[in-house]
Amino acid sequence: MTQTRTSATFSPPVMEARRWLEGVSFPAERPLINVSQAAPVDPPPLALRKAMADFAVQEDSAHLYGPVLGNDDLRTELAAQIGAHYAAQVEASQTAITSGCNQAFSAVISAITDEADEVILPTPWYFNHKMWLDMTGVRTVDLPTGDDLLPDPELARQRITGKTRAIALVTPNNPGGVEYPADLVRAFYDLARDNGIRLIVDETYRDFDSRSGPPHDLFQQPAWDETLIHLYSFSKSYRLTGHRVGAIATSRSLLAEVEKFLDTVAICPGQIGQFAALWGMQNLSQWLAGERDEILDRRAAIKDGMPALEAKGWRLLGLGAYFAYLEHPFDMPSDDLARRLVAEAGVLLLPGTMFMPDHDPAGRRQVRVAFANLDRAGLGQLFDRLQGLSF
Amino acid sequence: MTQTRTSATFSPPVMEARRWLEGVSFPAERPLINVSQAAPVDPPPLALRKAMADFAVQEDSAHLYGPVLGNDDLRTELAAQIGAHYAAQVEASQTAITSGCNQAFSAVISAITDEADEVILPTPWYFNHKMWLDMTGVRTVDLPTGDDLLPDPELARQRITGKTRAIALVTPNNPGGVEYPADLVRAFYDLARDNGIRLIVDETYRDFDSRSGPPHDLFQQPAWDETLIHLYSFSKSYRLTGHRVGAIATSRSLLAEVEKFLDTVAICPGQIGQFAALWGMQNLSQWLAGERDEILDRRAAIKDGMPALEAKGWRLLGLGAYFAYLEHPFDMPSDDLARRLVAEAGVLLLPGTMFMPDHDPAGRRQVRVAFANLDRAGLGQLFDRLQGLSF
Repeated sequence: MTQTRTSATFSPPVMEARRWLEGVSFPAERPLINVSQAAPVDPPPLALRKAMADFAVQEDSAHLYGPVLGNDDLRTELAAQIGAHYAAQVEASQTAITSGCNQAFSAVISAITDEADEVILPTPWYFNHKMWLDMTGVRTVDLPTGDDLLPDPELARQRITGKTRAIALVTPNNPGGVEYPADLVRAFYDLARDNGIRLIVDETYRDFDSRSGPPHDLFQQPAWDETLIHLYSFSKSYRLTGHRVGAIATSRSLLAEVEKFLDTVAICPGQIGQFAALWGMQNLSQWLAGERDEILDRRAAIKDGMPALEAKGWRLLGLGAYFAYLEHPFDMPSDDLARRLVAEAGVLLLPGTMFMPDHDPAGRRQVRVAFANLDRAGLGQLFDRLQGLSF
Repeated sequence: MTQTRTSATFSPPVMEARRWLEGVSFPAERPLINVSQAAPVDPPPLALRKAMADFAVQEDSAHLYGPVLGNDDLRTELAAQIGAHYAAQVEASQTAITSGCNQAFSAVISAITDEADEVILPTPWYFNHKMWLDMTGVRTVDLPTGDDLLPDPELARQRITGKTRAIALVTPNNPGGVEYPADLVRAFYDLARDNGIRLIVDETYRDFDSRSGPPHDLFQQPAWDETLIHLYSFSKSYRLTGHRVGAIATSRSLLAEVEKFLDTVAICPGQIGQFAALWGMQNLSQWLAGERDEILDRRAAIKDGMPALEAKGWRLLGLGAYFAYLEHPFDMPSDDLARRLVAEAGVLLLPGTMFMPDHDPAGRRQVRVAFANLDRAGLGQLFDRLQGLSF
């Protein structure tokens, strides 16, 4: 087979995991517990759905092309909300709207790298980041983390070469769940700035952070936009995964490059998604606070359940955002384990091997649980099933 | 500045043209005539908008992730409609839904090419095709056309090298308007098949073709999907530009590669756009036939108006789809002319230079008029203004 961009990478893990379900039936008394994908399973609040419906019927602009970098009203509101969240001053012209946060990452990578450049990713990494780097000809330099899943700026410094263009962090982390301390994020920012490279910070799960106040002070730094590329998603916060709305905050000059990519790959973000994101930011702050409380309660439930699981040899490595990242006790690689869990425990989760380079054995001991859709009762069942395993 | 993927290409032409409007005011008695973008300016029919509104309120799935390659119901309907349109048998699994037809092109190019490969594009080309080839490290081999704007398979054959991976046609053509004869499209298919490369046929404007019956017989060829990559857009036909929904038809194995790209750049197409495309195909065939009649009438109006324009030295090179492609009589490059037309004639159109490589002087004599949004009265005004020019 001819070498192509896409042949340089692997198949989408979430779709692969879905295929493990084919031909497996789950008894009514023990239905599948699906903790594979980080996505809401409920629709947005009825008031937002009705507002979207009115918009579709009444506003012609709901159906027409908009600006490549997103609608002005949404960019203005986003800039204001970033300013409020991070205690900083951000202009609408320093923001752009994308068709989801994956697209935001793809666009900025294409705007800052060329063939054979390098980008540093802490491991475990978010697989779509790795896939895009593979597909665009960029070498991924992995940055192993320890048992706390926190990346080490000193180790990162040693991995910077003349080809390095960026370090990409995800906080709160996917898949690890861990919330990066503000001073750690700042240390990475300083490292990037001092080396003339970019720091990409994907904050898709920002609104579910257990801490209050600004999660870091990067937006307060002078000329922050020359170093920082902030990524955000409206999908998780307002339950808009089916509408594909994400965002970028960085310099105007970089956004002019991003515009070329977005024009060619998307033309513009979907209008109804942009409307919904704006409406959500303007009307759902109280509702979102409640959503966060619920996620934090589920997170607490996992903490409560861990001692029983630890007694069976499991270890909790990271917990936060939508994720628990666990070390399993079994004498088999996590990808084998994950496949067996479908039939033998009625559990679909993703193995650590999907978040790691092949040369790093750590992923074989690890699994990711996207717990956000399980209430306390559901989490109890999940823990019961995991405790009951004997291989 | 560091070389990057995006720095390898130019800025989005439509956005650049919009910037020419900045600071220019248009008197009430002579408003701007904007024939720069090929996009409906009216929303879809009210019945469709109401159906979309009901879907948003009543269906949870309207707001949730769907499959990367699109929803099964839409793929099934699309396959059936392709089958009917081209008198062929196409399976749902041979189709995929994308977030617009630009994304369809980007995805297939990344699935069939690698760094330094080559793709042949007839000129004038569709600029977003050129932009993506630039950004993904593929060398564009231009295939000049004559005054009829039809590409020559023999000339194409001479330009095929060991690095050639595809020839990409657009029919009815953007920007040229010309409808490629079925036997010409077939000759390119045979050429591609015989050389083990792909033939991409972008048929975004298919539903406005002036001819009746299948526009080509490629879908009827044995193992058509090993050579043909058919691209389609729902945006123009059902006025869904703001919802980003396009499509691909090709082999299952190639779609498995395309899936990697789409997962990373989009995750899934927007749900409301997919719903609207399906509803449109199932309910708007009569309405669409009326839309086509209207476009064909406007096209006829351009033909009627040409003698007066020809008397001023203009020539009509191509006419069809949404476009008239004209040769202008002035002693200045078309990009200068286009800028001057904004202030001096209140007309925004795109210069041929935006559709041509720099080394080909033909584009300097040419302009594209996206006429679809002008009725006969509007076209009359446009022609009056163009006839009145004296530089």
